[in-house]
Amino acid sequence: MVKRVAVLLSGCGVYDGTEIHEASAVLVHLSRAGAEVKMFAPDVDQMHVVNHCEGKPTEEKRNVLQESARIARGDVADLAKLDAAAFDAAIIPGGFGVAKNLSDWAVKEKTSTIQPQVEKLLKAFHRAGKPLGLCCISPVLAAKAFPGCEITVGHDKECERWPYAKTAGSLKEMGCKHVNKDVGEVHVDIKNKLVTTSAFMCKARVHEVFDGIGLMVKEVLKLA
Amino acid sequence: MVKRVAVLLSGCGVYDGTEIHEASAVLVHLSRAGAEVKMFAPDVDQMHVVNHCEGKPTEEKRNVLQESARIARGDVADLAKLDAAAFDAAIIPGGFGVAKNLSDWAVKEKTSTIQPQVEKLLKAFHRAGKPLGLCCISPVLAAKAFPGCEITVGHDKECERWPYAKTAGSLKEMGCKHVNKDVGEVHVDIKNKLVTTSAFMCKARVHEVFDGIGLMVKEVLKLA
Repeated sequence: MVKRVAVLLSGCGVYDGTEIHEASAVLVHLSRAGAEVKMFAPDVDQMHVVNHCEGKPTEEKRNVLQESARIARGDVADLAKLDAAAFDAAIIPGGFGVAKNLSDWAVKEKTSTIQPQVEKLLKAFHRAGKPLGLCCISPVLAAKAFPGCEITVGHDKECERWPYAKTAGSLKEMGCKHVNKDVGEVHVDIKNKLVTTSAFMCKARVHEVFDGIGLMVKEVLKLA
Repeated sequence: MVKRVAVLLSGCGVYDGTEIHEASAVLVHLSRAGAEVKMFAPDVDQMHVVNHCEGKPTEEKRNVLQESARIARGDVADLAKLDAAAFDAAIIPGGFGVAKNLSDWAVKEKTSTIQPQVEKLLKAFHRAGKPLGLCCISPVLAAKAFPGCEITVGHDKECERWPYAKTAGSLKEMGCKHVNKDVGEVHVDIKNKLVTTSAFMCKARVHEVFDGIGLMVKEVLKLA
């Protein structure tokens, strides 16, 4: 039985879109597992276009779907057309695009809202008992959509290796159970069928992120 | 002995820059091997900005160095500052950026010229007996810089699996020895210390491209 997986993108580049190496790792592991993959992104303007040399927003406008197509080599569809019934699982790689284009977490954190098409997707998969794989900052979407769920964004004590550890605190304040996990590990919330891993929330080497995402993909396919 | 490897980028996206999954594969395999990596790109305008949904050029202007920074998560330097003496090897992932921003192969093919900074880099590594790893369309740079060298861009007979096979014919007409290799294989030109693999010149699944690039990285590090 070939597993059909929807991958949701949010642009192309860590500071204003999908984190490129996380997306690529998701696709490599799904490909090796023989999954059938279709990519989606919302057809909306990006919140920011960031000059990735300087880390600062520019005056440019870019479209999330068009930029996501760079990762998808052109083969990406408008998220509005996603039919959850046609898939066995969904995976959302991280990057600031998740917090800027799929939600407004980047500016509102705990009081943020999820982009309506994304919220619909998450709830449709959840209702149908289909697993969701989320890495890096993407688990914040589950925290908003499924109050009380169990997730990891890595560790909850800030240090050089975990520069964004405060996120775990915010998730706990929202009533989630945050489980500390290293970059090569995942947390599986069996009840909600959520598989989460820290990826680049950890200042890790890229092959460690690749391997953690490999484990996430494996667990998602097991639950699908 | 930690091997120091320069990775040369040409933008971000298969149709006007570096092919994202090839770059990511190079970085994952170098990371796993414990290599010390530094990324570079020329600080010049892209030849094209292509809407990757439609595959057509737009009126936009983008800078090769700034777009490459999306792949490099900000950690990329101006190619003008690359000192070949500080590295043991160099690797150039593919994508149309190689044929549009690192050379004008996309419009001139056999009569193309290499961007001066890139040509200087290639010749400096070659002269010092340091290996170069080239995948996808990048081997055309070696064909221009090192007449008579041995390379592969995959297969020389066009078919569904090898849509760009005519490139091999052009390389032969330029006096190179083209060696047919499948996507999971590499060709090593021992004399010129060139390691080449077809990557997305083949209509392969992304994990096959990932593995072929893994072999390229391994052979480059062996020669370094």
